[in-house]
Amino acid sequence: MIKVAFQGERGAFSEIAAKKYFGEDVKLSPSFTFDDVFSKVKKGEVKYGVVPIENSLYGSVFETYDLLLNYSLTIIGELNLQINHHLIAKKNYKLSEIKKVYSHPQALGQCSKFLSTLKNAQITPAYDTAGSALILLQNNEEPTAAVASREAAEIYGMKILKSEIQNNKKNYTRFLIISKKKEKREFTSPKTSLCFELKSMPGALYKALSVFALRDINLVKIESRPIPHKPFQYLFYVDLQGSDKDERIVQALKNLLEISVTIRKFGTYQSGETHKS
Amino acid sequence: MIKVAFQGERGAFSEIAAKKYFGEDVKLSPSFTFDDVFSKVKKGEVKYGVVPIENSLYGSVFETYDLLLNYSLTIIGELNLQINHHLIAKKNYKLSEIKKVYSHPQALGQCSKFLSTLKNAQITPAYDTAGSALILLQNNEEPTAAVASREAAEIYGMKILKSEIQNNKKNYTRFLIISKKKEKREFTSPKTSLCFELKSMPGALYKALSVFALRDINLVKIESRPIPHKPFQYLFYVDLQGSDKDERIVQALKNLLEISVTIRKFGTYQSGETHKS
Repeated sequence: MIKVAFQGERGAFSEIAAKKYFGEDVKLSPSFTFDDVFSKVKKGEVKYGVVPIENSLYGSVFETYDLLLNYSLTIIGELNLQINHHLIAKKNYKLSEIKKVYSHPQALGQCSKFLSTLKNAQITPAYDTAGSALILLQNNEEPTAAVASREAAEIYGMKILKSEIQNNKKNYTRFLIISKKKEKREFTSPKTSLCFELKSMPGALYKALSVFALRDINLVKIESRPIPHKPFQYLFYVDLQGSDKDERIVQALKNLLEISVTIRKFGTYQSGETHKS
Repeated sequence: MIKVAFQGERGAFSEIAAKKYFGEDVKLSPSFTFDDVFSKVKKGEVKYGVVPIENSLYGSVFETYDLLLNYSLTIIGELNLQINHHLIAKKNYKLSEIKKVYSHPQALGQCSKFLSTLKNAQITPAYDTAGSALILLQNNEEPTAAVASREAAEIYGMKILKSEIQNNKKNYTRFLIISKKKEKREFTSPKTSLCFELKSMPGALYKALSVFALRDINLVKIESRPIPHKPFQYLFYVDLQGSDKDERIVQALKNLLEISVTIRKFGTYQSGETHKS
C-alpha cells in the first residue's frame, strides 16, 4: 500500500487532500510539522507527501516554498480542495446548549458569522482544526463543540451539529504532491514549477517575465521569497502552463539562465482538479 | 507630543523602530494587534502608526499588506531595523545556571545556535519577544531568562547576560510609518507604493511591469496577495523608485490604468535608512 505523509492530526484537510488524490487505499502518516513531511519523503519512509501551498483567502504558505528549495524533491501533482467547516460534537446538542467551541484561530475567523449566533458559547483557540476534535475526546467539558472537517467528525465518531458554517464559500486550498522521484507520465494540462535568482541588473524581473511572455507561455502564479544572506533581495517562484519537455519552455529556460544566478526546476505535473472537502 | 501606535508590548522591535524614526520625544501607544494600530490611526487616536512590512529572513508580513488595502491610510515613511537579540534576566546569572528561556518561537529559532550551548535551560515559546521579558517579571521561576531587545531589558530593568546572540547578523525588518494625511515634503530618495488588480488577459503581469520598465522606473519590490472573492487571482503590490509627482511615474500609472481593474496608491515617501536595534 502506498505510504503518504501529511501535516496535522487525523482528519486534517491535508489528509482529505491525500485521499482525494490517491484514493482511500493509502497508508497515511500524520506528521507534526511540514518539515517532517519533506523529511519522511526524502528518507524514503513514505513515497509521497501532501503539503498546502496556498489558500485562496490567506495566500501562500511560505514554509512550503522554503522547504521546496531546501529539499531536493519533485512536485508530481497538485489538487485544489474546497474548505468546508462544520460544527461537530460528541453528542447531538442543541446549538443553544453549546458552552464552548474549539478550533484553530483561522477556522474560527472563517466561521465568525455563524459562531456569533451561538450566544452561550465561549470561542476558544486551539492548535489546529482536527486537533480541536481531539480536545473534545480528551476533555470532559460538555456541552462543547469544535469547528472541523467532515472527515474529523467521522474519524473521531462525532455528530455534525451544523454543516458548512464558513462565511465565504469560495475558500480553496491548493495542495502539492511531492516525491523523491520524477514520474514519467503524459499530462493533458501540464504545469511546470521552478524558482530562480536573477542577476543584479535594472528591470531584472521584467526581463525574466519577458522570456515567457515573448513565447506566449502563460504565467499562472508568481511568488517572491527573501534570500537569507542577501537582505531585501528575492528569489522568484513561478508556475507556468506547459511541460518542461515543451520546446517553448525549454528555450525560455535557456534564455532565463542567461539572466539568472541559479534556476531550480521542481517538476512538471497535471494541473489540479478541484474537490469538495 | 506626537502620539504613535505600534503592535506589541513595551520593548517590542516596533517600538524601537518608532523611536528611531520620531526620536525619544513621542507618546507611545502599545497595541494588541496590527489591526488596532491601523484603527487608532484611522480614528485619529494617534497621529502615526509603525508596522512591520517585511523581514529579510522571513519575508513579507501579509497582514500589513491586507490592512493597507482595507484602511484608506497613507504611507509617509519607512525604516530598516537590524534585529539584535539579547539574553536578558532579572539578575546577573551565570549562563550555566539558567534553567528556562522564554521568547517568541521565531526569536528562539533565530538564536538556536547560542541557545543550544545553554545545557541546563528549557527553551519555552512565549507570545512575543518583549512579552517574554514581562513573563520574567510576573513569574517567580528563577533562574530564568528571556530572548528580547536591549530596549526591553532597559524598560523592565533587566540585566543583559549575553548580547547579540542571533545566528545570522543579517536580519533586518522593514517598517512602514502610516498616517491619515499625506505630508507635503521633498524627498532626496523617494519611493512610491501602490497596488493594482489587472484585467484578465494573457501576459497581464508582464504588461504591467513593462509600463515601468519601458520608462526606466526601477521596481524595488513586488508582492502578490489573493483576491478573496476571486479564488487564485491576485492583487499585486509594488514599490517603485521615484515620486508620484515624477512625470515618468504619472505616465506609467496612466498606462497601468488601461490594463487594470483598480489601482490604489499608498503614497510617496523617503526610502528607509537602516538603524541598529
